[in-house]
Amino acid sequence: MTTSSFSPVDAATLGGWDYHYDVVVVGYGGAGASAAIGAHDDGAKVAIFELGSAAGGSTALSSAELYLGGGTRVQKACGYDDSAQAMYDYLMASNGPQADSDKIRAYCDGSAAHFDWLESLGVPFKDSEYPHRAIMALTDDCLLYTGNEKTAEFAAIAAPAPRGHNLKVVGDNGGPLFMQTLQAAVEQRGIEQHYDSRALRLVVDYSAAVERVVGIIMRIDMREVAVKAERGVVLCCGGFVMNRKMVEQYAPGLLRCSVPIGNPGDTGGGIAMGLAVGGVALNMHEGFVSLPYYPPASLTNGIFINDKCQRFINEDAYHGRVGAAILGQRSERIYLLMRVDDYADYETNSYLGAAVAATGDSAAELADELGLDCTLLSGCLTTYNHFAAQGSDPQYQKSEDWLKVLEGPLVALDCTPGRGAYFPYFTLGGLHTAVSGEVLDSAAAPIAGLYAAGRTACGVPRRGDGYCSGISVGDASFSGRLAGRAAAGNHSS
Amino acid sequence: MTTSSFSPVDAATLGGWDYHYDVVVVGYGGAGASAAIGAHDDGAKVAIFELGSAAGGSTALSSAELYLGGGTRVQKACGYDDSAQAMYDYLMASNGPQADSDKIRAYCDGSAAHFDWLESLGVPFKDSEYPHRAIMALTDDCLLYTGNEKTAEFAAIAAPAPRGHNLKVVGDNGGPLFMQTLQAAVEQRGIEQHYDSRALRLVVDYSAAVERVVGIIMRIDMREVAVKAERGVVLCCGGFVMNRKMVEQYAPGLLRCSVPIGNPGDTGGGIAMGLAVGGVALNMHEGFVSLPYYPPASLTNGIFINDKCQRFINEDAYHGRVGAAILGQRSERIYLLMRVDDYADYETNSYLGAAVAATGDSAAELADELGLDCTLLSGCLTTYNHFAAQGSDPQYQKSEDWLKVLEGPLVALDCTPGRGAYFPYFTLGGLHTAVSGEVLDSAAAPIAGLYAAGRTACGVPRRGDGYCSGISVGDASFSGRLAGRAAAGNHSS
Repeated sequence: MTTSSFSPVDAATLGGWDYHYDVVVVGYGGAGASAAIGAHDDGAKVAIFELGSAAGGSTALSSAELYLGGGTRVQKACGYDDSAQAMYDYLMASNGPQADSDKIRAYCDGSAAHFDWLESLGVPFKDSEYPHRAIMALTDDCLLYTGNEKTAEFAAIAAPAPRGHNLKVVGDNGGPLFMQTLQAAVEQRGIEQHYDSRALRLVVDYSAAVERVVGIIMRIDMREVAVKAERGVVLCCGGFVMNRKMVEQYAPGLLRCSVPIGNPGDTGGGIAMGLAVGGVALNMHEGFVSLPYYPPASLTNGIFINDKCQRFINEDAYHGRVGAAILGQRSERIYLLMRVDDYADYETNSYLGAAVAATGDSAAELADELGLDCTLLSGCLTTYNHFAAQGSDPQYQKSEDWLKVLEGPLVALDCTPGRGAYFPYFTLGGLHTAVSGEVLDSAAAPIAGLYAAGRTACGVPRRGDGYCSGISVGDASFSGRLAGRAAAGNHSS
Repeated sequence: MTTSSFSPVDAATLGGWDYHYDVVVVGYGGAGASAAIGAHDDGAKVAIFELGSAAGGSTALSSAELYLGGGTRVQKACGYDDSAQAMYDYLMASNGPQADSDKIRAYCDGSAAHFDWLESLGVPFKDSEYPHRAIMALTDDCLLYTGNEKTAEFAAIAAPAPRGHNLKVVGDNGGPLFMQTLQAAVEQRGIEQHYDSRALRLVVDYSAAVERVVGIIMRIDMREVAVKAERGVVLCCGGFVMNRKMVEQYAPGLLRCSVPIGNPGDTGGGIAMGLAVGGVALNMHEGFVSLPYYPPASLTNGIFINDKCQRFINEDAYHGRVGAAILGQRSERIYLLMRVDDYADYETNSYLGAAVAATGDSAAELADELGLDCTLLSGCLTTYNHFAAQGSDPQYQKSEDWLKVLEGPLVALDCTPGRGAYFPYFTLGGLHTAVSGEVLDSAAAPIAGLYAAGRTACGVPRRGDGYCSGISVGDASFSGRLAGRAAAGNHSS
């Protein structure tokens, strides 16, 4: 309805077009760059319009790990025999009931080829592994575990393999390098790049036999310009984590976390434009949340407890799964208890920022300082230690590698949301799209001329508790490329 | 977009109108009847179009308890000093971060008057209380606790009061009586009632200065008829629990429950029509789920455990909160353990349908039969009994009234979702609306001429774990009446 921002404009009411392209890509992060390259290489005249003054999006701010598998060159070089089926089984299980089997199938089957495509664009990967428990590789090594593949629950479902692919660059510099590389590929192709361009409304041709999106109104230099997209508009505008109102409306549970992460342009405009032409949004309540308690990996020897003195997670899980489990607790406090010798270099080598809540030589001392019931805390520690001494964890199946009897002196970190620990988050909901990137309406019919990719769409990653690092940049670049190609192939006449 | 079912029709393309009304109400359950009465009494010419062959909707299938408070006549007569503020505080807390404070404020402030309005229409209530722990009153008594008001967690937030209002009718016969009464009020007013009428598409006037919904296309007698709504269309078509595809898409977590409850017409058509004209849907992942383990109330003396031998809920909670907590467990099995003497008349006086999984005189015997770790189960029982003997529950604050040392002989019921226990569910997501019932777009601007109420809208009840019996019929009749009145007052010229 034209009464509201983001509502579409009738093409018949336009005076004319300021720009003409075949495919218009909105947003210049990993999804947008991949969409533009995909569309161009399939023969379309393409332009990218970006809100910011430079390329990058949330991808440039990320580590740009890529979750890829099914036998990438690096996996093979490092001796891993991964299969698309094992990757599929893992992603289906970890994305829970809302998993999109078609998207996951396409992503897994196409994953090794997507790696090759990225490498052909110049994205550098080294044939080496980073074998430590870490959130990212700070070396230039490539392959690492970035999900829950090795934990007992998932290893029983699918053969584990490391699928995080870190770029060949030292330090946390993958994001900038990834986007510089993709931007060079865009420029090499002569794809037009427009910056400082705010997308306002889609343009719809209502007179056609089938209504279709035929362009977009952008605000550039304080002027509204009409951009014709003969074959399609591809929305790659990110998610909505930076739009507080939208998060309150759709995913208010995430607001217990501490820091929204992503690009300031992640304000949900692409989703809103899609909704305004009949698109539907899925999974809008879900988000990635993280409690980055490793490194140091030695904290994994500790146990998380709630205010009932109950454990609630295998502590060898991925940090995002732990973060989601913490948000799911009905508990006024969450503590991570460990031996002081496992505290290690926590103060200088951690992202966590959780304050020490107590130290003590016994459960009684700790309980007293933490305000917990001594009987309950003793019972919890006694039970854990009883099994840890045997190398087993019948409750949560934490790997024997991380089972250690917890004896004094002990230390407790306060990991309660809102009490200082770093708890980053971003959204996982977006427009319902086909595997091709076509935006779908409430009857699952495509909206002609409209595509979405990356976090503007509801893609492969669907659950905070099943997230794995690298799945966002992986999905964004994969879905972007598909959407660009689908738009390029969408000849209206 | 007109390519798809439910997409709107341009008024300019219609040959003419088959019916003319001021306000058209779609759906004849509690929301629809209330909307029609509200609109009529504010001076509009009203018609109701109902998919089924009779009035009723999901309301007639329910017990038609009404969650009302703030000092209703019955509350006062029974000696309860409830306030709109206490009710507000309770509903805000129990609906969690997604609570809509404006809707809850209006509902609580208007609750006692809404009771009077219903009574003025002929809905009968007796000034009496049903003081037992029950899902509904099977006597003709009125007032009972139907939520978590008395549990420690919520009693600390708001002064508890019973707010479930059961109709003056013996047995589970509130729903039919409620709808018969409302239908009589509709007929007395000469409001037109059309049955066997399927809503297909909204009609939009795109030529107006502000685009507006001006009617609806219905299929009646195998013919498409155009129904003009001068002032507005009110969608009261229920939720989407009977649309398996929609539940898979939006709320797949609910599919672990056993039985979708509601009217067969709850297929989400109203939501889809609203989405197709730019409405947005909120809270689509949420649902009411229930594990109806009382009566007999004596089962409350038992404890729920997961496969880690951990309790996870105060067992004196409302059955819906327990159901939600069960769905939230990562656990292959859920058991309810109790003393055999509390098993009582379970087999003849229960809705639960859970099979006996084990009996035994000791934790060891039970653990063996249940396939649980004996050390863990012993530890759980020892801890629980230690505190129960003192009349306390430091983990979950179950009331002393329900704390009993669990000694043999014990029995365990299998309450795992999918293993036989009755686990009904329905959806709590719907169109974003203003308090008035106006359907809002993604920028929170009203879509002119379009209203929604009851479970087609996202109303007061927003969380399965915070649900209270009577809030659906309460909210449906309240929001329906408001939406009808708002539509009646919406003179387009």
